[in-house]
Amino acid sequence: MALTSGRQRTDVLTAIAQALRERAEQVVAANAKDLAAATEHGLTAAMIDRLRLDVDRVGKMAKAVDEVAQQPDPVGQIIEGWVRPNGLRIEKLRVPIGAVAIIYEARPNVTSDAAALCIKSGNAAILRGGKESFHSNLAIAEIIADALGGAGLPREAVQIVNTTDRELVPLLLRQEENIDLVIPRGGESLIRAVVEQSRIPVIKHYTGNCHVYVDAGCPAELAESVVLNAKTQRPGVCNAAESILFHQDVAATLLPAVGRKLIAAGVEIRGCERTRALLPEAKAATDADWAAEYLDLIVAVKVVHSLDEAIEHINCYGSHHTDAILTRDVTAADRFVAAVDSGNVMVNCSTRFSDGGEYGLGAEIGISTDKLHARGPMGAADLTTYKWIVRGAGQVR
Amino acid sequence: MALTSGRQRTDVLTAIAQALRERAEQVVAANAKDLAAATEHGLTAAMIDRLRLDVDRVGKMAKAVDEVAQQPDPVGQIIEGWVRPNGLRIEKLRVPIGAVAIIYEARPNVTSDAAALCIKSGNAAILRGGKESFHSNLAIAEIIADALGGAGLPREAVQIVNTTDRELVPLLLRQEENIDLVIPRGGESLIRAVVEQSRIPVIKHYTGNCHVYVDAGCPAELAESVVLNAKTQRPGVCNAAESILFHQDVAATLLPAVGRKLIAAGVEIRGCERTRALLPEAKAATDADWAAEYLDLIVAVKVVHSLDEAIEHINCYGSHHTDAILTRDVTAADRFVAAVDSGNVMVNCSTRFSDGGEYGLGAEIGISTDKLHARGPMGAADLTTYKWIVRGAGQVR
Repeated sequence: MALTSGRQRTDVLTAIAQALRERAEQVVAANAKDLAAATEHGLTAAMIDRLRLDVDRVGKMAKAVDEVAQQPDPVGQIIEGWVRPNGLRIEKLRVPIGAVAIIYEARPNVTSDAAALCIKSGNAAILRGGKESFHSNLAIAEIIADALGGAGLPREAVQIVNTTDRELVPLLLRQEENIDLVIPRGGESLIRAVVEQSRIPVIKHYTGNCHVYVDAGCPAELAESVVLNAKTQRPGVCNAAESILFHQDVAATLLPAVGRKLIAAGVEIRGCERTRALLPEAKAATDADWAAEYLDLIVAVKVVHSLDEAIEHINCYGSHHTDAILTRDVTAADRFVAAVDSGNVMVNCSTRFSDGGEYGLGAEIGISTDKLHARGPMGAADLTTYKWIVRGAGQVR
Repeated sequence: MALTSGRQRTDVLTAIAQALRERAEQVVAANAKDLAAATEHGLTAAMIDRLRLDVDRVGKMAKAVDEVAQQPDPVGQIIEGWVRPNGLRIEKLRVPIGAVAIIYEARPNVTSDAAALCIKSGNAAILRGGKESFHSNLAIAEIIADALGGAGLPREAVQIVNTTDRELVPLLLRQEENIDLVIPRGGESLIRAVVEQSRIPVIKHYTGNCHVYVDAGCPAELAESVVLNAKTQRPGVCNAAESILFHQDVAATLLPAVGRKLIAAGVEIRGCERTRALLPEAKAATDADWAAEYLDLIVAVKVVHSLDEAIEHINCYGSHHTDAILTRDVTAADRFVAAVDSGNVMVNCSTRFSDGGEYGLGAEIGISTDKLHARGPMGAADLTTYKWIVRGAGQVR
């Protein structure tokens, strides 16, 4: 795969998208087997909804593959280069990582998304989806293998772990000679289990406990629109806000106004004592609320004495994912940006923008909460490494 | 540390270098305690030599710290940045990683080198050197803490693990909430033990099984000078060559000539059958020789049928560290560069150039044989991560 051209990889992705559309009924039929078993095993409605495919959803999967195809090729970029005094020409060349294993839950669309990003970046992919999606994944993988084979590339470049045996995962995670990177996608317990067992480097994608801090002097309309959007536009995703902090100088005016808008939008508020004094509708927050990732229409609200207390609170209780300040004070914005230890720091906009598509990176394989290799939204370019190329004319030391 | 200015960090390093010179006798006295214990415990002469400090060697440590001080500041660089159609300004800002643990053998100079690179890049350092260097490391750490404190920075930003208890290392490696990165430096067994136990991301620095491949049509003088240099200029280091491959078209002429020069330089040759037919002085190589990292005046020599056999051999038996081709054929050079899966690929120069200083990166913390985060020579900039800064004017989704 590392020796393929960008054209070959793009053509394969286009072929996969086309075959997904043409063979959508076949994927839906395989999915029906998974759905029948899921119903039998009593999966929750939310899990079944994530598992379910119809022709329309398969069409969306195809569209996502087409979009990855159209992204610029990350492979082959000269990241840096220079000539040394002795004439050696040094280049840092972007190349695929090699083999990437992705371990995820029973969401069949992740199969085509992850395969597309791995192919785009010249990697081989080993995909292990939740066992409830076994038949769906095999059907999607067959389409991908056919497209790879049809383009003269190895059918095996994308492999589904072809068993539902749970014992296999620990064995997979010890293949450090054969697999270069593991990306777990799913709940915290899945990710922790992978980190615990893996000898292969792991990039983690924990969900986010994202904050919006409303600074002293923040205009009412800025606080209202951004807080409402960050909390309620899509509460079940990792970049939705879970905690709102108000500077005490604006708490008396802004907290009740913003709080009542949140309540009107169906949000339950869990507040500190000063919050409850200003907004009697709020329930009492416990320490656990400051660290909670509700992924739901619930929000923790706290009044802080200062910008520095807000920063300390975020660095202490947050998940280092995405945190925002709303302010008119450039000094406060600069300090917040410098001191908040998060992968994404926002000034005067919604935390919901923390997203590969919104940043202009194209499709993302997840939002890394790690600091090594990739941090924040992780696209095809983050599935590459580099090698140093040194060209000389016989130089010796 | 993340909020310090580049000036502050440079000044601390200059103060450390100065104090190392002024207090060299104190370091040497502490080192004498370690040397006495080492002699008593029967350490090898090579280990004692690596452990030994005198005023001259402490002066060299000070010089290395000064050199790190003079490197450009890696922190604060805008790696990329652009404006989105909705007006959001996106910046990818280089920032320190946080807390870096370095686990190494009984080489006290690593204590000041590693501390200097961590301070330069705005990180806190947790240093665990071999127990035989305990008193030396404490003396060096005291000088570093005094310099940090004298500049108004936290004395605790560089910490020596203040015990020789081996049970502590596994505990350290589970502090994933407090330590962001572990770098083991030393032999393969040390590194494997760290990888096995760590929940914290690890960047590995294995030693190298480096190859020089002499292609068809390679001029004699190019083969002789580069092979001799790669093997003999400093055989005990990771970027020295361990295997030489000759294309069969040049083997009859070049292999005996190069082989006899290696023998004259004191090198033992272990060859394949065809090598031994051309050079009867060569011993017979076993399969283990193709994978060996001798770090000594021994070399494995093999005749290959083709460029592709050379590439396959290198990717199969090599350690993905540094491999070189000597050729006049631009197509062969391009194929070698593309297909050899190593962190450093050289064309027509010695493998010995695989080095942060030689690349112009400044002092290195090691040469990564990993593909994630940093690959090849790893300098102060590789001890950084980035955060995404998004600035808006009230944008919502």
